[in-house]
Amino acid sequence: MSSRRVERVRAWLAEQDLGALLVSSAPNVRWLTGFAGEGMLVVDNGALICTDSRYRVQSCEEAPGVECAADGGHLEQAIARLAACGAARVGFEAPHLSYANWQKLAEGLEGVELVPCGDEIRRLRAVKDTGEVKLIERAASVADEAFGQWRAALEPGISEREAALELERLMVLGGAEKPSFEIIVAAGPNGAKPHARPGPRTIDVGDLVVVDWGAQVEGYCSDCTRTLLVGEVGEKQRAIWEAVREAQLAAIDAAVAGAKCAAVDAVAREALRGEGWEREFSHGLGHGVGLQVHEQPTLSQRSEDVLAPGMVVTIEPGVYIDDWGGVRLEELVLVTEQAPRVLTHAPYDL
Amino acid sequence: MSSRRVERVRAWLAEQDLGALLVSSAPNVRWLTGFAGEGMLVVDNGALICTDSRYRVQSCEEAPGVECAADGGHLEQAIARLAACGAARVGFEAPHLSYANWQKLAEGLEGVELVPCGDEIRRLRAVKDTGEVKLIERAASVADEAFGQWRAALEPGISEREAALELERLMVLGGAEKPSFEIIVAAGPNGAKPHARPGPRTIDVGDLVVVDWGAQVEGYCSDCTRTLLVGEVGEKQRAIWEAVREAQLAAIDAAVAGAKCAAVDAVAREALRGEGWEREFSHGLGHGVGLQVHEQPTLSQRSEDVLAPGMVVTIEPGVYIDDWGGVRLEELVLVTEQAPRVLTHAPYDL
Repeated sequence: MSSRRVERVRAWLAEQDLGALLVSSAPNVRWLTGFAGEGMLVVDNGALICTDSRYRVQSCEEAPGVECAADGGHLEQAIARLAACGAARVGFEAPHLSYANWQKLAEGLEGVELVPCGDEIRRLRAVKDTGEVKLIERAASVADEAFGQWRAALEPGISEREAALELERLMVLGGAEKPSFEIIVAAGPNGAKPHARPGPRTIDVGDLVVVDWGAQVEGYCSDCTRTLLVGEVGEKQRAIWEAVREAQLAAIDAAVAGAKCAAVDAVAREALRGEGWEREFSHGLGHGVGLQVHEQPTLSQRSEDVLAPGMVVTIEPGVYIDDWGGVRLEELVLVTEQAPRVLTHAPYDL
Repeated sequence: MSSRRVERVRAWLAEQDLGALLVSSAPNVRWLTGFAGEGMLVVDNGALICTDSRYRVQSCEEAPGVECAADGGHLEQAIARLAACGAARVGFEAPHLSYANWQKLAEGLEGVELVPCGDEIRRLRAVKDTGEVKLIERAASVADEAFGQWRAALEPGISEREAALELERLMVLGGAEKPSFEIIVAAGPNGAKPHARPGPRTIDVGDLVVVDWGAQVEGYCSDCTRTLLVGEVGEKQRAIWEAVREAQLAAIDAAVAGAKCAAVDAVAREALRGEGWEREFSHGLGHGVGLQVHEQPTLSQRSEDVLAPGMVVTIEPGVYIDDWGGVRLEELVLVTEQAPRVLTHAPYDL
């Protein structure tokens, strides 16, 4: 599977009249080879992982069949290979190579034309293959399962921090390598901050609690948000919750192949406008998820991305009211040739 | 305090005949201003944090008195400020600016000479002031305290993974923002891998267990390692443990102001050679610790760094034997004008 991905990169290199590419973004190296350690990758007629002795064994295990150099500096070994391969034009990932490393590359490859490339591999990564979708589904399922157990045992009086630690524990014991990002548990007014960090505040009866969590399995991430109400549901709380849920469902329906991401964002925004909460929806609708928890495409008002079958994206509208709290609901959705398929199945009951 | 640090950078800029500096490394921005969010910093006659609306409030709270721009792209706002300040020569952090961002900078600042700088601020960060040492001591104390509780409750049969989660939980409940790195709990043969990840293996009677952990408090890290023996101590296990401890104590004594880092590394290596374990000590002796868990200086055979009062470094010799296990012992040490001061105080009993 990985070698097919490398073939796609080689086809792109041929189009660009490039003889080789230096890949320096870690998730791009992992996507192309399976190698998850620190290092770089040279793609020429072959492919060479450039790492160090710490990762020699790991590289063989994770990227069987891919050549590996582990006897020096990552960049130095890459330069040696690029010089040896004889390419006249060599591409590099301009967003992922530091200026200092570019200088070393230029010094080490005199006479070779260095061509700054964009993030072509990240663009390729936006469309997942069947194996990748399965891993994301496994990550989502581990996260769902842990959440169910956590929700059932949740008692008022626990701090956000302790609650987040417990959810992490359940995910890791359930098979996650780790959480795919720092878990958010934001109770009461803290829910008004979309990126709140769990703190000492306790979860009390009557609180809306925003819980945003995900698991990582074989490098692939899940991402999901629920907003709970602990105890009785107030009228305003229920009204906002239902407005957000309506907006989310409408946007999920709109997440079909060929749709502009900005248009899908607009569907949710329109739905919230109808309920009078559009101004309180202060962020974009969603983002791609894969080896990184934030990747292409971007679902926002300014996005120029277009949905394609195989993309896995979050749909996560929210309403945030300062000093009051927030509601965010998030699903992970697979774009298909037919209807969108929701990959997250955590319970929704308020 | 932060403004004193900015003054030191300005003095350095004057020496280099630079009118301004673009700081793009997150820990460097934090060290100079206190701001811990995402963004960049321009240092000219004043200082401007360039971030986005998510961090507007946080920037005011964490960096009071420092101007903040939060209405556009980080780099775009920095370019506007650099253009407006009228500097003819502008420095940037070559190891921390991507080639793509350098291109944008060059396009946006036509007529300005862009000067690639090294990691001057990271070099300044190697020497801690009193406030920084206090924060590192607090982090170490939180980590020590959690370890003591954890050790007392440890029962054979628990998995490495569960044991690591429990140690994390105790640190966070004890006041850590989070662990300062992914905790290592490596039992039996797993201890042979210096960077083992906690897995399903259970901790059993007779196991050597390498535990490497640290806390983060107000951004500052601690780092400590103990090797436990669960149950009875075997002869080889004790002999290696004692050889490592001897090597560590000798190296700590040698960690005085003015000592070459390579020489301190050699003290530990010599001690292990005396016991016949030098070849099994397969990594460097230690590293600086501060806002990052790995920072300057580097204590290794090839290092050219020299210890200075105020540096906080790890001293962590180890012996690793494939298919058998490992012993690593690590302290965090403050280099002073007098004797080195050990900042970690977790119990040592095997």
